[in-house]
Amino acid sequence: MGIVLGTNQYGKAENRVVRIHRETDRHEIRDVTVSTALRGDFTAAHRHGDQSDVLPTDTQKNTCYAFAKSHGLGEIEDYALALARHFVDDVAPVRGARIAVDEFAWERVPVGGTGHDHAFVRSGSEVRTTVVTVDDDGAQVVSGLRDLVLLKSTGSEFAGFLVDGYTTLAPTHDRIMSTSLVATWTYTGTEVSWDKTWADVRRILLERFACVHSLALQQTLWEMGKAVLEEHPEIAEVSLSAPNRHHFVVDLAPFGLENRNEVFYAADRPYGLIEATVGRD
Amino acid sequence: MGIVLGTNQYGKAENRVVRIHRETDRHEIRDVTVSTALRGDFTAAHRHGDQSDVLPTDTQKNTCYAFAKSHGLGEIEDYALALARHFVDDVAPVRGARIAVDEFAWERVPVGGTGHDHAFVRSGSEVRTTVVTVDDDGAQVVSGLRDLVLLKSTGSEFAGFLVDGYTTLAPTHDRIMSTSLVATWTYTGTEVSWDKTWADVRRILLERFACVHSLALQQTLWEMGKAVLEEHPEIAEVSLSAPNRHHFVVDLAPFGLENRNEVFYAADRPYGLIEATVGRD
Amino acid sequence: MGIVLGTNQYGKAENRVVRIHRETDRHEIRDVTVSTALRGDFTAAHRHGDQSDVLPTDTQKNTCYAFAKSHGLGEIEDYALALARHFVDDVAPVRGARIAVDEFAWERVPVGGTGHDHAFVRSGSEVRTTVVTVDDDGAQVVSGLRDLVLLKSTGSEFAGFLVDGYTTLAPTHDRIMSTSLVATWTYTGTEVSWDKTWADVRRILLERFACVHSLALQQTLWEMGKAVLEEHPEIAEVSLSAPNRHHFVVDLAPFGLENRNEVFYAADRPYGLIEATVGRD
Amino acid sequence: MGIVLGTNQYGKAENRVVRIHRETDRHEIRDVTVSTALRGDFTAAHRHGDQSDVLPTDTQKNTCYAFAKSHGLGEIEDYALALARHFVDDVAPVRGARIAVDEFAWERVPVGGTGHDHAFVRSGSEVRTTVVTVDDDGAQVVSGLRDLVLLKSTGSEFAGFLVDGYTTLAPTHDRIMSTSLVATWTYTGTEVSWDKTWADVRRILLERFACVHSLALQQTLWEMGKAVLEEHPEIAEVSLSAPNRHHFVVDLAPFGLENRNEVFYAADRPYGLIEATVGRD
Repeated sequence: MGIVLGTNQYGKAENRVVRIHRETDRHEIRDVTVSTALRGDFTAAHRHGDQSDVLPTDTQKNTCYAFAKSHGLGEIEDYALALARHFVDDVAPVRGARIAVDEFAWERVPVGGTGHDHAFVRSGSEVRTTVVTVDDDGAQVVSGLRDLVLLKSTGSEFAGFLVDGYTTLAPTHDRIMSTSLVATWTYTGTEVSWDKTWADVRRILLERFACVHSLALQQTLWEMGKAVLEEHPEIAEVSLSAPNRHHFVVDLAPFGLENRNEVFYAADRPYGLIEATVGRD
Repeated sequence: MGIVLGTNQYGKAENRVVRIHRETDRHEIRDVTVSTALRGDFTAAHRHGDQSDVLPTDTQKNTCYAFAKSHGLGEIEDYALALARHFVDDVAPVRGARIAVDEFAWERVPVGGTGHDHAFVRSGSEVRTTVVTVDDDGAQVVSGLRDLVLLKSTGSEFAGFLVDGYTTLAPTHDRIMSTSLVATWTYTGTEVSWDKTWADVRRILLERFACVHSLALQQTLWEMGKAVLEEHPEIAEVSLSAPNRHHFVVDLAPFGLENRNEVFYAADRPYGLIEATVGRD
Repeated sequence: MGIVLGTNQYGKAENRVVRIHRETDRHEIRDVTVSTALRGDFTAAHRHGDQSDVLPTDTQKNTCYAFAKSHGLGEIEDYALALARHFVDDVAPVRGARIAVDEFAWERVPVGGTGHDHAFVRSGSEVRTTVVTVDDDGAQVVSGLRDLVLLKSTGSEFAGFLVDGYTTLAPTHDRIMSTSLVATWTYTGTEVSWDKTWADVRRILLERFACVHSLALQQTLWEMGKAVLEEHPEIAEVSLSAPNRHHFVVDLAPFGLENRNEVFYAADRPYGLIEATVGRD
Repeated sequence: MGIVLGTNQYGKAENRVVRIHRETDRHEIRDVTVSTALRGDFTAAHRHGDQSDVLPTDTQKNTCYAFAKSHGLGEIEDYALALARHFVDDVAPVRGARIAVDEFAWERVPVGGTGHDHAFVRSGSEVRTTVVTVDDDGAQVVSGLRDLVLLKSTGSEFAGFLVDGYTTLAPTHDRIMSTSLVATWTYTGTEVSWDKTWADVRRILLERFACVHSLALQQTLWEMGKAVLEEHPEIAEVSLSAPNRHHFVVDLAPFGLENRNEVFYAADRPYGLIEATVGRD
């Protein structure tokens, strides 16, 4: 029974690229972290240390910066597609490329009621993401967001659950529900208005989170994913990963106070973790 | 020469308190992390393990939650003052109390053009802070903010600096200037409109950062602090701590590309660190 | 075309369990973080909010703590297997369970040349891991380690690589190679001496890292994985993920100093990321 | 009432310096993070953006790397003293310098019963620290450690404490006591055997933590600090900051199990925070 090389890939992770578009005095900024990974037959590099088919990760880094100038850095999906196609098409030994981009949002600093031309302030802790894979099967784009922190102060229940010998939880018909959402969605193709679609998916996720009366986080995630698919035929499936950031009602009775779901202890760990994918038949 | 107990304090750090105000269907949320520290003569506890003068940190935690109900949790400075005064006034051995509060901001989820009644989304990575100290000298309030990430894509120079045998840096008349600002300011008293003042100080800091043509980060910090003092007589001094988050122009010449301050590598470490206090005569 | 529920699971993540074995005065400690995830047909919970098949994540947490007493918490693989089998066997709607355990190591505090009976100090930043999955296909155990930080100050080359129009890197025959290793290995069964095998795999990984003259990180990983498989027939495959933590030789020539690979700048980001799986035919 | 510049300093923070001593085949490694801060009259830089007295932070970084070669990087206190004295003595406008160094420990990879010549593995999460300040008053050295995680599984009580209307805690005569210690100590001079003294202070801190039967964390800290001062006349005072990392006994009675201080929930937040300085008359 021989020992064999299995799945492998290599690349440069977390290249921090900031692109200023300054054709006019009113600058635009794109702030991203890019990670590359190349796939192909790299057996010789592993077995014999032969690097002749290995494009250095340093070169991959250079390419990320160069493309931010030569191809521009506008919608992150286009940027990632250009990089992935370049590696697969132009670098002979490469058979597949995976490009992951995280984008950090900036707003203009408000000055006298309007946004400044070249001063910016980071907006939100939320990150926009895309992962583009190009190989023999073509291009696949999976976009999303993470660190979108949401909270409902009512309109959330958890009752009627399965009880066993280790169950001590009491059912509740009014609780805080809070999560730090990770959402990704797979596009059916690459002819998409990326920025516009991303913003609309985000809007739908937020609205469904707010408006669905929740009987469980599972149900809320399902409704969020379903609504995205109903409104966006260019999306094949939606995956949601949602930590249940527990907020416990603090017992204030020992101090002669009544706590009507007003004062909560926000716990760090452990947390529930609910993961679901919603797709199409 | 004897061995003696010097400065000491103890408390409960990082109590996560979430307060929902739900008197009407339109809920309000305050989300804070509170840390307490008590001071006094705790020699017996240290030297002999005698706890009779020691209010447990668990009790301090309980008090933070109880006060969020009994005294409300509105402006964080008021909440911190109430806690600090309670410990000093009501707990005999306590001679001084230091209460630190970090506040995390939430916005209403936008639904159909308006904000939802009870669904919220975290806004920004920025944190509002206050540190209140109460002791024999009275009450001191030091409020501020941290993690306010700013960037100017032009309007920043660094030239004419001192050169020695270890200097290799070239002067520049156009660079990115970026920082993650920590600002604190000391109030002269406690009769202050806390929320309103905080928002106005933040506005001034942002505007000065944006509008001052910068010859150095030191100069920008000075102008920011000075403007706050000029407009707010109730503030005695402003302290600013600003990492200089370096953005390096990437050399694209090897790839036949010209980089006119358009593509930058954003470095993590090392970073410049500029710290200054601006006060009054 | 209908909308359907795809892959889903739910559980309680990052339960912090500390188990003291105190049958004698010489205590033993096991310090772990446990995450559970249950799988099955939870369509009703998602589509209708019907929780009748849902064992609360709070109950899963309770079970983790209860099993630490009733089943003991010795070798983490045994503990995880017991939990996974319990959920699948004893909770009717559950068809699969995934239990992940991270273990943090402690040493006895040395006192007078020997280890203290009940005082411990955390040893290392390294984490021992296992992921156990039980479902209709039986039990699978994947153990490993992460945050194992390694460095070779010589004995590492990188030359003869592919060059394209974006390549500026110079080849080198003497560099620092450093990584923070993540390794996982899949056992062929469950009749394994877990602690002993884990320690021996770690020994092999360390020795191969140290002793292989490296022509590339890929080659080093291959040799590490191959050696584990050669010595451990009870292991089916080894997966290694290794960030290349770059250490750059600092140019000291401007200061009249020669740097013969003695002074390095250790960079945070970007970093190379090399991933490979070594298996059997 | 005029607006004035108060306390200020500037420097380069978190320079990552790795120094390999390779005079023989048996290499030695020193891995540090250095932060510089310069003080003096920098009014012109703040008020007018005049940099003529400002040595760039980039130059300070260069100096850190150059000194690692020209002055060596052995005991971190010596390295920091050399840097601080250079800035104060050789750079005219500088009146004071503060150099902070964190050192990360490495061990040789064990191969065949002995340590490898040039392969190393990071040992521990603990960090050795020093802060050296040089100004008109001379040189001050404050060394220490942080992230030293300790735990006692018995031999710790907390009882007889002050009770008020917010107290719900029950006294206990047997609990887990755990902390992540930060210790710093101030030397009376600079003629010290730094490495040897550091190791001995660490030994004393560990032994006292282990051997003192604790009636409170305050008492343990006092005993630790006192023992250091008793054995080390070259140390003027010791400051200890100790989070009380709470380990709560889990109630297993609902599951028919008795928990005799065997199974604990290790909480993240909140935590007690006990801070004390022990000095001499």
